[in-house]
Amino acid sequence: MTDEQWMKQAIKQAKKAAEKDEVPIGCIIVHDGKIISRAYNQREIKQLSTAHAEILAIQKACRKLGTWRLENCDLYVTLEPCPMCTGAIIQSRIRRVIFGAYDPKGGCMGSCTDLLKVKGFNHYPEVSSGICQEECSDLLKEFFKEKRKQKKS
Amino acid sequence: MTDEQWMKQAIKQAKKAAEKDEVPIGCIIVHDGKIISRAYNQREIKQLSTAHAEILAIQKACRKLGTWRLENCDLYVTLEPCPMCTGAIIQSRIRRVIFGAYDPKGGCMGSCTDLLKVKGFNHYPEVSSGICQEECSDLLKEFFKEKRKQKKS
Repeated sequence: MTDEQWMKQAIKQAKKAAEKDEVPIGCIIVHDGKIISRAYNQREIKQLSTAHAEILAIQKACRKLGTWRLENCDLYVTLEPCPMCTGAIIQSRIRRVIFGAYDPKGGCMGSCTDLLKVKGFNHYPEVSSGICQEECSDLLKEFFKEKRKQKKS
Repeated sequence: MTDEQWMKQAIKQAKKAAEKDEVPIGCIIVHDGKIISRAYNQREIKQLSTAHAEILAIQKACRKLGTWRLENCDLYVTLEPCPMCTGAIIQSRIRRVIFGAYDPKGGCMGSCTDLLKVKGFNHYPEVSSGICQEECSDLLKEFFKEKRKQKKS
């Protein structure tokens, strides 16, 4: 499977979020060539500030593997991770992060800051960015366009 | 109540962690002059990378108040928050953070980096640091000293 093929699975999750009126961000975690965890942003449904797609996916993966060390896991997410999710990725020792769209308003893997360039942490994942960027970004643009329409009417 | 008095409650939580052989870090969240949430680090017990004291306390507070917006809440924690927890505090719009010991190995409120100086986020809490610093720090030192002894014997 290529990064693009895995990212399509994360995009599927993002679309589920949109259907539930949540900001469309989706995430999957891959281990040994299999998806062990899928999640989408559920902040509003759960009224939980930590219910970002990445955090939910990491929590599921820890439960599935029975360990907090996700050392041989790769995380695919449609949007560049925020500070909380970048931190959770570091804490989980995830091997590789692959993200789609860049987030100038909160992204901590290069856009607002690059947390992975800060010295002193226990772990630094590899990062690939801009995978299926347009599709990931269009999902978000479409969602917010629709939201603005709803507000006006 | 003073910051020191609230911090003593967070220290109580940290001691509970130590009793369970977890790195002793404790946290409470105060809203309207009352503690609405208490938690201690449970990463090993839960085998969950996100089970830091602050994340568990934030999740409890959201459930208690029925909202992800913890706007009038103050968070007391015995150790300077890591990137994940600093991010969760930003995401939760917590009003004020009061921490005890500084963390040169992961602290993101000044020690390794200062995430609150990064531009572009939606929210920035006020921070007071070094409250009951010695007591918070001694708890950690004692814990790791004991661990090293156990390893040697």
